[in-house]
Amino acid sequence: MEWTREMRYRPYADWSAETLLKLQAQASNSPYQMGYHIRPTSGLLNDPNGFSYFNGQWHVFYQSFPFGAAHGLKSWMHLVSDDLVHWKELGLAVAPDTKYDSHGAYSGSAIALDEQLFLMYTGNHRDQNWIRHPFQLGAYMDQNGEVTKLAEPLITQPEYATDHFRDPQIFKHGEYYYIIIGAQDKATKSGKIALFRSKGLKEFTDLGYLDFTADTMGYMIECPNLVFVDEQPLLIFCPQGLDKDIVAYENIYPNMYLLGDKVRLDQAKFETSTQQIKNLDDGFDVYATQAFNAPDGKAYAISWVGLPDVSYPTDQENWANCLSQVKELSLKDGKLLQRPVNSMAELRKKGTILIPSEIVSGSQQLIAESGEQYELKLTLDTDQNGTLHLAGNDDLSQSLTLDFSTGQDAQLTVSRAHAGQQFATKFGTTRKIDLPAHQTLELEIFIDHSLCEIFINGGEHVMTLRFFADQGPKQIALTSENGPVNYRGTFWKLKSI
Amino acid sequence: MEWTREMRYRPYADWSAETLLKLQAQASNSPYQMGYHIRPTSGLLNDPNGFSYFNGQWHVFYQSFPFGAAHGLKSWMHLVSDDLVHWKELGLAVAPDTKYDSHGAYSGSAIALDEQLFLMYTGNHRDQNWIRHPFQLGAYMDQNGEVTKLAEPLITQPEYATDHFRDPQIFKHGEYYYIIIGAQDKATKSGKIALFRSKGLKEFTDLGYLDFTADTMGYMIECPNLVFVDEQPLLIFCPQGLDKDIVAYENIYPNMYLLGDKVRLDQAKFETSTQQIKNLDDGFDVYATQAFNAPDGKAYAISWVGLPDVSYPTDQENWANCLSQVKELSLKDGKLLQRPVNSMAELRKKGTILIPSEIVSGSQQLIAESGEQYELKLTLDTDQNGTLHLAGNDDLSQSLTLDFSTGQDAQLTVSRAHAGQQFATKFGTTRKIDLPAHQTLELEIFIDHSLCEIFINGGEHVMTLRFFADQGPKQIALTSENGPVNYRGTFWKLKSI
Repeated sequence: MEWTREMRYRPYADWSAETLLKLQAQASNSPYQMGYHIRPTSGLLNDPNGFSYFNGQWHVFYQSFPFGAAHGLKSWMHLVSDDLVHWKELGLAVAPDTKYDSHGAYSGSAIALDEQLFLMYTGNHRDQNWIRHPFQLGAYMDQNGEVTKLAEPLITQPEYATDHFRDPQIFKHGEYYYIIIGAQDKATKSGKIALFRSKGLKEFTDLGYLDFTADTMGYMIECPNLVFVDEQPLLIFCPQGLDKDIVAYENIYPNMYLLGDKVRLDQAKFETSTQQIKNLDDGFDVYATQAFNAPDGKAYAISWVGLPDVSYPTDQENWANCLSQVKELSLKDGKLLQRPVNSMAELRKKGTILIPSEIVSGSQQLIAESGEQYELKLTLDTDQNGTLHLAGNDDLSQSLTLDFSTGQDAQLTVSRAHAGQQFATKFGTTRKIDLPAHQTLELEIFIDHSLCEIFINGGEHVMTLRFFADQGPKQIALTSENGPVNYRGTFWKLKSI
Repeated sequence: MEWTREMRYRPYADWSAETLLKLQAQASNSPYQMGYHIRPTSGLLNDPNGFSYFNGQWHVFYQSFPFGAAHGLKSWMHLVSDDLVHWKELGLAVAPDTKYDSHGAYSGSAIALDEQLFLMYTGNHRDQNWIRHPFQLGAYMDQNGEVTKLAEPLITQPEYATDHFRDPQIFKHGEYYYIIIGAQDKATKSGKIALFRSKGLKEFTDLGYLDFTADTMGYMIECPNLVFVDEQPLLIFCPQGLDKDIVAYENIYPNMYLLGDKVRLDQAKFETSTQQIKNLDDGFDVYATQAFNAPDGKAYAISWVGLPDVSYPTDQENWANCLSQVKELSLKDGKLLQRPVNSMAELRKKGTILIPSEIVSGSQQLIAESGEQYELKLTLDTDQNGTLHLAGNDDLSQSLTLDFSTGQDAQLTVSRAHAGQQFATKFGTTRKIDLPAHQTLELEIFIDHSLCEIFINGGEHVMTLRFFADQGPKQIALTSENGPVNYRGTFWKLKSI
């Protein structure tokens, strides 16, 4: 199906309820549909929005185009949770229904006030010549989930930026609210982060661009986030068109982070001495990660698992993408760690402790029938190599493979080249990370139907990816061509949320 | 809002997706919305349909009018479960989209075949004069949830019945499939159950009315079900307009049962010697209970919590009703027991054991803040009386009350007269059951926001009701004006599903 502009921007009122009900049933019935991750009720999901803690619950919203696997007219869909794991869908919260968001209620963030959750987001309006006019809009959500939009924009497109000006993140620092916004500089056509501040959420002072790097950040920065991890500032952002000589990456667009020493927001300065810009996720499919500091100071992140301008196999089923699990951010020896939240353990059914047996030039089945929804914790000893097969078919001719070596040139390579339906192959079918030499490798792997999240060495790396294995029984196996592999681990089937 | 015929029967294609999205959000955001029961995604829910076990999962569907709290154009919404407790919504499964179900895909049942679930339901077609033509229709659902309707009806309205001819239940007995259908006899305008049988689900032989009582069963019987409990036949049915001298009841329409000794289906005979027709539920709001025998022979039932022709407070929020929890049926000393399924215990969070203290002419708080979602097990000793208050406000001026006496004239009376918003008061605000004299009273109470299910003495009685308490903190308390009350019990907050 070709998505014409008319179809993508057709008002929600002009789609039929029958179509929507069918799309919802189609998304629910898909064998690739996630069981314990946030997924679209119908159509396409992209960026997480408004991740926050308010009224005694965690809140997150997602960018939604409910009418198919296309980036059409966007709205915010709302979910709440008591534990960051079990999410309850509340449905449409911010619809594209005013003159300022007539062509989409795009991404944004939220901050809890006393009795209300304040939402700040980008509304797009297209004029008769299809010229985009981005507006940074505000809305108040009350404790019953009722959203009241402000009548006028809070921030309009500044002189210095093009119409690529979006994704406001609001946070409080000291006595001010600060807002950072992804921007394209008009003069240089380069990616920037604009900084504003406000005392009472009524008037916003433009502080210019945030100074955080001397390098050119491609042609546009999307979804900037500034959070504090153990009091150090962390900048998460998506520099589109970033030169790979500045930071290497393989996905169509990267999601990067930069750990700072401190910020001087009044001077628009993000200071970092030794830290470099790095990939936030070393897998295939993470983008638009949103992070925020909870009332207790902890930093949490959640990602869109999906990429702009990439087609996924479920496009054929009229739905696409999901959100990652929530990741708790912390620092260890100056390095960023991303970890599953503790409540994830509540999804575990009875565990199976893996009983090692010696593998010599062969294959050992770890789990005969893994199902589609599980957690696998696996420790691999130093100085060995082999391949872990997930979602393997009978003869392992099909599987998602993790090639590991834990010796001198230690590496982990994930390949989806033989894991069912192929897609996005022009960006490669493998992702590789270097590991510390001669060290034990700790893997925490979460599989949810067509989603794989791999936490490596306590969250020093995360590799997130979609894969679309053929239907049928699936095994987990270890193969080795170079002698025995020593391992230990536990396997849990996981409950749905 | 007045629901005109045009609005109620408007095709799903003529409602807008925007309206549906708003209705879905409204139903989700309601403070009265259930957290661990099946509830409408939007609009009105009524009868459970197609309760079955197929393809390794439990299935249930519900009658849905997605566009408001009205009995409009009906469809089937589908849910699946691994444990009869955690239900996953799959959405629209049987739409009113053929000439035979153009005016509603009404209630029916399901039976698992090898690779398919066979659905049998009533389709209504209205002609130009708005005359109803009921058809008993068939459809096959495959393992991917795809439903294919048969082109032609399986059974049409027989000569002897009026157009009140609906709600087929299909089950296998011996080498035949049997179908029972609720009917109104044309000659006498009385409620009947029509019986058919079939060998290959292609040709259906009319066996006439099922002979199970000499009494007149009102003017119509809806939702007949025949299941076997410990090998004894059990007939569950809804005789509308039943004379209260035949069986006493207080609800607008009753849901009755009759336990038999045996059935001779080839002779259309349901034989019972001593058993009488009884209320299946002694509360306010149970109707259209559907039961079936699982592959292991166990009998399970699930009820619509809601009644025809009754308005509920959430009608103002454009949604209405829910399903009960699944009840396992068994016999004890020739009496029917209805019990929560074992998996319900998996919803429990950490329990609180109630520590009794003596109450003399006063009130004891059992739980200071119960929340809206819990289970309370309470044992009350013999020869005492008092009142249990659920969902009580600060001074207990508002609460759902259970007056108990466990002496000579032992009784339990549930009153919702002071439990928030009043409704259906013309059918009374209390329901009372007699209890065995001088016996301990065992209560298992499940509260889910606006739903209360009370299992009495191991399931000898069930009292199910909706109530709409004011928002705010809620306590559980015991009051007594006649000396101490001895009790013991446990309280658990329950997880959402």
